[in-house]
Amino acid sequence: MSPGVANFDDVMAAAARIAPHAHTTPVLRSRGLDALAGCSLAFKAEQLQRTGAFKFRGACNAVWRLSADEAARGVATHSSGNHGAALALAAAGRGIPCHVVAPADAVRSKLDAITAYGAVMHRCASGIAAREAACAEVVGTTGARLVHPYADPAVIAGQGTAALELLAAAGPLDAMVVPVGGGGLAAGTALTLAACAPDCRLYLAEPAGAAETRDSLARGERVTDFTPDTICDGLRGTLGQPGFDILRAHGAEVLVVDDADTVAAMRLVWQRMKQVVEPSSAITLAAVLGNRARFAGQRVGLLLSGGNVDLDALPWAA
Amino acid sequence: MSPGVANFDDVMAAAARIAPHAHTTPVLRSRGLDALAGCSLAFKAEQLQRTGAFKFRGACNAVWRLSADEAARGVATHSSGNHGAALALAAAGRGIPCHVVAPADAVRSKLDAITAYGAVMHRCASGIAAREAACAEVVGTTGARLVHPYADPAVIAGQGTAALELLAAAGPLDAMVVPVGGGGLAAGTALTLAACAPDCRLYLAEPAGAAETRDSLARGERVTDFTPDTICDGLRGTLGQPGFDILRAHGAEVLVVDDADTVAAMRLVWQRMKQVVEPSSAITLAAVLGNRARFAGQRVGLLLSGGNVDLDALPWAA
Repeated sequence: MSPGVANFDDVMAAAARIAPHAHTTPVLRSRGLDALAGCSLAFKAEQLQRTGAFKFRGACNAVWRLSADEAARGVATHSSGNHGAALALAAAGRGIPCHVVAPADAVRSKLDAITAYGAVMHRCASGIAAREAACAEVVGTTGARLVHPYADPAVIAGQGTAALELLAAAGPLDAMVVPVGGGGLAAGTALTLAACAPDCRLYLAEPAGAAETRDSLARGERVTDFTPDTICDGLRGTLGQPGFDILRAHGAEVLVVDDADTVAAMRLVWQRMKQVVEPSSAITLAAVLGNRARFAGQRVGLLLSGGNVDLDALPWAA
Repeated sequence: MSPGVANFDDVMAAAARIAPHAHTTPVLRSRGLDALAGCSLAFKAEQLQRTGAFKFRGACNAVWRLSADEAARGVATHSSGNHGAALALAAAGRGIPCHVVAPADAVRSKLDAITAYGAVMHRCASGIAAREAACAEVVGTTGARLVHPYADPAVIAGQGTAALELLAAAGPLDAMVVPVGGGGLAAGTALTLAACAPDCRLYLAEPAGAAETRDSLARGERVTDFTPDTICDGLRGTLGQPGFDILRAHGAEVLVVDDADTVAAMRLVWQRMKQVVEPSSAITLAAVLGNRARFAGQRVGLLLSGGNVDLDALPWAA
């Protein structure tokens, strides 16, 4: 792996590296949703990945590519939830320490999972600056290796394996729609599509309340000064520099989605597909349903990124 | 098919008959739930069946075994939901009329599905007597063939195909746990186990608020005078005579489950498996978790019967 930059060879290496640890998740279809969308939808079901989210791919790749000496000092990260849980489980799988810095406003169920997987939890204030400062302190104290949730090249390469499996299972696709937050999944997907399916158009589904990827790509430079306001708790991060560079070079297009449409799409996935997905997953279906003309008649791959919703909020959980 | 009684040959015939129409649903596993239960769990995912419930198997078998003349007059049934939707879709698949009598207190989403599949809806008062009377009137008026939700031998044979697929996918099992309401699924499963896996013990998970199957098997005669009170809306029916005869002969054992335990198990399935299942499905896991000593170390098949919950009740659906 070249320092600081991931490429498609890294994705292929990641696929082999994580194979003994991660699930090959199924690709699901729904004729009811196809009829509703006016196109053929292939859903990559990463809610069925270990830890309930695609994040396990990148974390697993980052953990298992460390040398024995590096690994012995452990890993650390900051995460609103899914990446933290993923790194915790990946580290547990290799038997090494894991430190997770998480903001106070993270989803409760995700924090519980991190602790359950045996990581040491460090709380911090919300906001990217506070998270990074707290994480740097942990790294300084422990000597652990920082595994950034979306800027680490090993993480980006690992996330690219989901699109690889989707293409392998679904066959040729005209378009692929993935959620974009920090850009690790989006960038990994771009690497895979460029190498394996150059004619498959890449769309990034982004919440209207955190649409800095759209703004960054439009301006040609990263917009980092914004306050996210969206129900998609997995997409509140700021697009990282590696993701920006890869997505800009790839010509990925952003589709902005209102939270209300994401919630409606989430309900559709629960009802029609019987799959528990989180808002950050359902935004991909919302992006398609909000742009029917663009996808009409096409073969569209959608990445359902995870299923970690806070079920305590449901009435029957009392 | 012998008149009035289903046997294993009928199950095998049903499997071939419904193959072009019904899904072979996956068998799901969760190492987290295995650890919690202390045994190895194989979940047959009938929430992923067409119409979101196993009921499509029996309805489909009943519809497609009719002669062309019989079929032309259509089919009719009374159902609190899943069987009605299943018969509606099966009839639509053959292009014949379908009449569904449903009580006023049925789950809204299930009634909507019946209408969406093109059936003619007839409302009635709740209670088995009112349902049967209203259905008899519809049959008399239209000449449609009654397809009883759980006493029809073609329905029982069709339901038996789920256990057949579960055994084929999961390999040898020490026990199988299925929900029991009217007894169609339970009886079909008993036919399959008797022929294919005679050493696999059959357990029937029954809500404490509708435990007349337990009472009927204990007394040696059907208890029909009771008022169901349970969150498991699919299990409020009364055990039918064919189901009673088959289950009694088989020596099936009833495990009674409180609704609170069913709700807790439902939450576990949503959270750990990311599957939307209804209470009538989750009761099987609750039955295992409530009888850990009995299942310790065993290979246990559980039938998740369906996933049709009323999502309007969830807070984010507003």
